[in-house]
Amino acid sequence: MTKYNFSSRVPLTNDNPFGEILTVASKPSIVSFAGGLPAPELFPVAEIQAAANRVFDEAGQTVLQYSLAQGNLQLRQLISQYMQTRGLNDAPDDLLITTGSQQGLDLIAEMMVNPGDVVISEKPTYLSALDVFKTYGAETVGVDMDADGMKMDELEATLKRHPNTKLVYVVPNFQNPTGNSMSLARRQRLVALAEQYDFLIIEDDPYGAIRYAGDPIAPIKSLDSNGRVLYTGTFSKILAPGLRLGWISAASELITKLTLLKQFEDVHSDNLTQAIIAQYMQDNDMQKHIDHITSNYRDRGETMHAAIEKYFPAGTELTHPEGGMFLWVKLPGNPDIDQLFAECIKNNVAFVPGAPFFPDNPETNTMRMNFSNRSVAEIESGIKKMGAVISSLIYAK
Amino acid sequence: MTKYNFSSRVPLTNDNPFGEILTVASKPSIVSFAGGLPAPELFPVAEIQAAANRVFDEAGQTVLQYSLAQGNLQLRQLISQYMQTRGLNDAPDDLLITTGSQQGLDLIAEMMVNPGDVVISEKPTYLSALDVFKTYGAETVGVDMDADGMKMDELEATLKRHPNTKLVYVVPNFQNPTGNSMSLARRQRLVALAEQYDFLIIEDDPYGAIRYAGDPIAPIKSLDSNGRVLYTGTFSKILAPGLRLGWISAASELITKLTLLKQFEDVHSDNLTQAIIAQYMQDNDMQKHIDHITSNYRDRGETMHAAIEKYFPAGTELTHPEGGMFLWVKLPGNPDIDQLFAECIKNNVAFVPGAPFFPDNPETNTMRMNFSNRSVAEIESGIKKMGAVISSLIYAK
Repeated sequence: MTKYNFSSRVPLTNDNPFGEILTVASKPSIVSFAGGLPAPELFPVAEIQAAANRVFDEAGQTVLQYSLAQGNLQLRQLISQYMQTRGLNDAPDDLLITTGSQQGLDLIAEMMVNPGDVVISEKPTYLSALDVFKTYGAETVGVDMDADGMKMDELEATLKRHPNTKLVYVVPNFQNPTGNSMSLARRQRLVALAEQYDFLIIEDDPYGAIRYAGDPIAPIKSLDSNGRVLYTGTFSKILAPGLRLGWISAASELITKLTLLKQFEDVHSDNLTQAIIAQYMQDNDMQKHIDHITSNYRDRGETMHAAIEKYFPAGTELTHPEGGMFLWVKLPGNPDIDQLFAECIKNNVAFVPGAPFFPDNPETNTMRMNFSNRSVAEIESGIKKMGAVISSLIYAK
Repeated sequence: MTKYNFSSRVPLTNDNPFGEILTVASKPSIVSFAGGLPAPELFPVAEIQAAANRVFDEAGQTVLQYSLAQGNLQLRQLISQYMQTRGLNDAPDDLLITTGSQQGLDLIAEMMVNPGDVVISEKPTYLSALDVFKTYGAETVGVDMDADGMKMDELEATLKRHPNTKLVYVVPNFQNPTGNSMSLARRQRLVALAEQYDFLIIEDDPYGAIRYAGDPIAPIKSLDSNGRVLYTGTFSKILAPGLRLGWISAASELITKLTLLKQFEDVHSDNLTQAIIAQYMQDNDMQKHIDHITSNYRDRGETMHAAIEKYFPAGTELTHPEGGMFLWVKLPGNPDIDQLFAECIKNNVAFVPGAPFFPDNPETNTMRMNFSNRSVAEIESGIKKMGAVISSLIYAK
């Protein structure tokens, strides 16, 4: 058999410990807090089906034909209107429809990153973003965060050490994996630093619409007037991830280049699905649906927070998100997290160890806990079970 | 405003002469042979809508949720069965579902091409493939073709000049833009050369199922036993391009790597659409639908061929495809093709100049003619009109 000579972008091994964790955790018998899935029982299946039927009835031939790389104009108009409710004024022409926000990250990295350029992220962060940056040859560097998001003094020190920083990647709202949000003051400082140190900001915002406590914070992009922020949005968390549609909003010069790269990559995103979502948004009150999700996630998130405080051992630290799908736990001491994971699986409950979310120097006593995909009752009983496993292991030492 | 420091992948200008031609040609008043669109009136809209409704009724929540990067297993099984009818035996595990075959080309280039590596293509060729290879830093080199496809002696000479050739890209059936197919002997020689000179072959086959004359030729991939051929397929020409679904079939070691890169790029392809196509294939005789398309395209292709022979000036050379969507014309002498295009547009008829399809040394007296997107009557009258314009221009010199 041929010995292949892969490009330098290809990971040397096929090891995928994170994927293996998710596979183990996905057994039906397991109450899993490991994945990052929205609640399928909240998908508006009937409404999306009705939208699909209108699309087939009224424009069947059109939506099955090739279309524009930038995406369905009506959908871009509707996203533009929706974004205004989130504090952003982007014209439909300043939007590019992408195959999920993952492709948005990919296209931005492709546009900006030469091999050896530095991309800075929060630490911990969404690890699949780092994978994308690395395929384009980026060196990724993490900056610590706290309850107010990425630490700006530390960011500035990092920028001084890495003058070839091209991009700073942040998830400012209900971040994956911590659930924390970046304060307004830090958002303002980040924009000022971008100007001073000449980099662009990726504001990745899959969760921002799902706020169940506290007040909305202005999007970073709304604080910038020099075209330094690329905002990536997605329908995955507010509507349905299987439809794989997201968008980038950015300065028109950037959208022009991104559209060209998008055309090279997949010509355009699924035309039928674009039309279905546009029809859904026209025929339904999407904000009402988002409110419905948010209210459910509030119950789940608050239940999980209270249960962890109740059942996990003394000394456990945890975040208290105001929205989104995740919270973040630091266990006391120095537990063997792999053993803990294995014991939890034996007890039909699962989480994700936090270490893989760190670009470097992982904190091995951390766990990401997803609360969007399980009922309040499952969360209560599952956390109780996890608490017992943890306590028995930690106290056994 | 910020002055952006783009990566070296980004084209320096936003010039897109080919796109401008297609935009000019897409005015409703114009009978266009310029684009590469399938016939929308042949899309099985009602059958796809019925399949969509079954999917929503039976698996609504599932298809709206995240799924596997490799793609819907049932769809891969159905493609595997379909590929057997085309002469290929690929297990469902050796297939990766992609967002159109364009993404297949992108992922293969990403996997194999380091900056400076050489990718060889037919000359002329599908120019958007060359764009993809270039974004990964490839040097693209063209090899002349004739009615039997890429010339193998010339390929071997080119391989000797470029020992860092990683990939040879071919469209062996009813090639875009010429409509020619590669003979079996050349396919065999290509596989032998791949072994001898250590490169991989991309067999891009969007049109192969649409054969209306002559006998099928064995796929290149079926002639290889060393995992050197990556076959890219698509539903764009046999079902509907707006659904943006295609596949790669390749050795499982390659599919494993490609699946990882696919996951980085867009997580997975549209889950709803994957399920709709699988349902469509289960509930319908897709081959019967392909036969229906093929029979229509035969009438259109043969009409265009006869009309060009009748109405274009003496000395015009043209290919005689046995399937697909295009034929290729060489005009006598040295006509000003831009002037010819402008005159045709004035007369409400359009074609694409052939020069942009050449990686280098374009033949400026060539034209690509698409016959799939217009009725027999429009083809007859449109070609007659073009013939008059060409004759008046060429004889006016």
